[in-house]
Amino acid sequence: MKRTSRDIRTANRYRVLRQIIAASPTSRQELAAATGLSLATVATLVGELLALGMITEVGFEDSAGGRPRGLVAVNTSGGALIGVDLAETYVRVELFDLALNVLARADEALGPGEDRPEQVAGRVAAAVGSVVARAGDGAARVLGAGVSVPGQVDRDTGVCVYAPNWDWHDVPLLDLLAGHLACPLYLDNPLRACAVAELWSGAARGHGDAVVVNLGTGVGAGLVLGGGVHRGVTNSAGEWGHTTLVLDGRPCHCGNHGCVETYTGAPGIMLNLREAQPDSPLLRPGDQTATVDALAAGVRAGDPVAVRVLRETARYLGAGVADLINLFNPEVVVLSSWVAAAFGEPLLDEVRAAVTRHALRRPLAAARIVLSPIPTDPVCLGAATFALEGALQPAGKGAGRHAVGGPR
Amino acid sequence: MKRTSRDIRTANRYRVLRQIIAASPTSRQELAAATGLSLATVATLVGELLALGMITEVGFEDSAGGRPRGLVAVNTSGGALIGVDLAETYVRVELFDLALNVLARADEALGPGEDRPEQVAGRVAAAVGSVVARAGDGAARVLGAGVSVPGQVDRDTGVCVYAPNWDWHDVPLLDLLAGHLACPLYLDNPLRACAVAELWSGAARGHGDAVVVNLGTGVGAGLVLGGGVHRGVTNSAGEWGHTTLVLDGRPCHCGNHGCVETYTGAPGIMLNLREAQPDSPLLRPGDQTATVDALAAGVRAGDPVAVRVLRETARYLGAGVADLINLFNPEVVVLSSWVAAAFGEPLLDEVRAAVTRHALRRPLAAARIVLSPIPTDPVCLGAATFALEGALQPAGKGAGRHAVGGPR
Ligand SMILES: [Zn+2]
Ligand SMILES: [Zn+2]
Repeated sequence: MKRTSRDIRTANRYRVLRQIIAASPTSRQELAAATGLSLATVATLVGELLALGMITEVGFEDSAGGRPRGLVAVNTSGGALIGVDLAETYVRVELFDLALNVLARADEALGPGEDRPEQVAGRVAAAVGSVVARAGDGAARVLGAGVSVPGQVDRDTGVCVYAPNWDWHDVPLLDLLAGHLACPLYLDNPLRACAVAELWSGAARGHGDAVVVNLGTGVGAGLVLGGGVHRGVTNSAGEWGHTTLVLDGRPCHCGNHGCVETYTGAPGIMLNLREAQPDSPLLRPGDQTATVDALAAGVRAGDPVAVRVLRETARYLGAGVADLINLFNPEVVVLSSWVAAAFGEPLLDEVRAAVTRHALRRPLAAARIVLSPIPTDPVCLGAATFALEGALQPAGKGAGRHAVGGPR
Repeated sequence: MKRTSRDIRTANRYRVLRQIIAASPTSRQELAAATGLSLATVATLVGELLALGMITEVGFEDSAGGRPRGLVAVNTSGGALIGVDLAETYVRVELFDLALNVLARADEALGPGEDRPEQVAGRVAAAVGSVVARAGDGAARVLGAGVSVPGQVDRDTGVCVYAPNWDWHDVPLLDLLAGHLACPLYLDNPLRACAVAELWSGAARGHGDAVVVNLGTGVGAGLVLGGGVHRGVTNSAGEWGHTTLVLDGRPCHCGNHGCVETYTGAPGIMLNLREAQPDSPLLRPGDQTATVDALAAGVRAGDPVAVRVLRETARYLGAGVADLINLFNPEVVVLSSWVAAAFGEPLLDEVRAAVTRHALRRPLAAARIVLSPIPTDPVCLGAATFALEGALQPAGKGAGRHAVGGPR
């Protein structure tokens, strides 16, 4: 858990490349100003990124009275990255260039019975293959693939420690995938994928401290602290969904009672609807997505029950988000994932109002609350970003796992 | 909020000196192994600490087959540090050597009417003067004084933004003190003082991620993340005491309901006692300290009401500490401050049992829960540590404020 010199160098590489992606072309002088690093450090890091083929020299700009300044930009054709969003009911694979633009996409449904690790790995590999084939030359040099799986993962070993939906325990997912895929592989979960996506390409970019609130079937908080993703000692930080909001409240599958998730996850929202109107026509039993979509449409149409359920859900969310603001004192709180996207602005407005009733004045004044600005699947984007981060690590250090026959 | 090269160099200075304080004498090789920094980086940092007079060369040790290795140790006589614990009812001042050993101490009571900033500053200055005088030659070169004040502070300007007990708003405390004291001054609050004390001299030393739970009149969580104190964007992170544990529960002075503090702060514990037995002989109305002491003595004597109140308090604390474990995934949780010290082991045992009922398995397994091992006032120690950190900052950077006439 100690930051070594090498960790710091890697973090600085991330910062410089992130800034180049955000604003290309750019000069070493602009990069130094934007990152706070010295010009000498930036020059060294730019040299390393050039040597890695991540960026290219693209000309010069005049500087008032001085020598012309060299400009660099992302080498979009320098390689491709794959992001895999492995969810309960589908596999989504996207291919990205080095500026993190989507080049190709594939979606595959996972049937109810398809939960054996070998089956799932095979489906992932097939989807990756189809995306790479479709991209043609653009995918000539795949630098790595990031895989997000809903559950607890051990990044270093590539093992899915626990995935509740499939009842997976200690599944060596990356070893299974390495039989199919010949590039470095990186494993993590949606919470951290969404956090790193916001950090590189979304509302957390340029911020030291940000909290990415994931609102889906489960809920959680991706933590960006000190400019990097906070993982905790066993990569399980951010389990905000299982913090207690109502002591002795609704039972949670984690064994605790009154967890934030039991009131604000999609099944919790369905329960909020049932409590508001037991026989509501908005309720689609057994279908979270359809129910949330029906509620969101109801809110837009001014349906009083839908509005009431949104307010009630936002009341719980507001108290829980206020807890995050009081604890972390972040610059920005990002509402992300499909439930946030489905409700959109009306949810944001209600959450902002509720947070104001619960948070302390000083951290509240410092925190902006926003919807995620990422227009595509943030989990795929984040997973691909893990592969980009892996490609930036010094040789021999990478947490990425290689295909059979490759270096381990 | 961005980490600059200079911030990183300063953080590395902290790490190396912290390690030298922990184990003196020591060699550059041992320091590199203990900190994870390269030998070249350690050699540079050791050179800087020698030049600053913080450490001294103390001889050589044989190395098997190689050149003898130079040994360094803290230069205990290289200067002194002052820590000020400014509390609601007293001022405590301690003088430390550079190894953070206490050399002298002064306590002064603050009367109920003594709440004007000028009065309080005068009392602090008098206590500092008496401690420095008592220490004699040991205090010849005071490198700085850290001041902890219960409330929200702006470290950079030395302003106490809000201190609820004295109803202070935007009091320029360091400017007031600078009229009396001719050394660099540093302002922060007890939460962060206890965190930095555990990081340099207590249970968080050597850990990347630790949470220091402060149990006093107020409660809060000092956050050590990535090997440093996490402050948040306006230095108000860690307000765990004002996270919601019981939605719509007990009213809190912050305006929210059901805050952790309303059940686990000393006044909350008194309320827990009143609810258990309204006319309890353990209750000392209007005196938190006496009531907590009576409860702690009752627990040791097996008094059933005292035991019941401890269990009930630990039930709330356990849920709240589980929230911290689920969110931060730390290596260690330290129970600190006077309420934790008063109850001691019985509180620790009950909290551990309660946390087990609420926390997720994986982060729970990774987290040790311990009582603070710091035998003296952690707030004074932490405040002095801020002065030590300030003395380690590169020239021109220090957050410390100088006496009138000194450099600003
Ligand atoms: Zn739960
Ligand atoms: Zn409160």
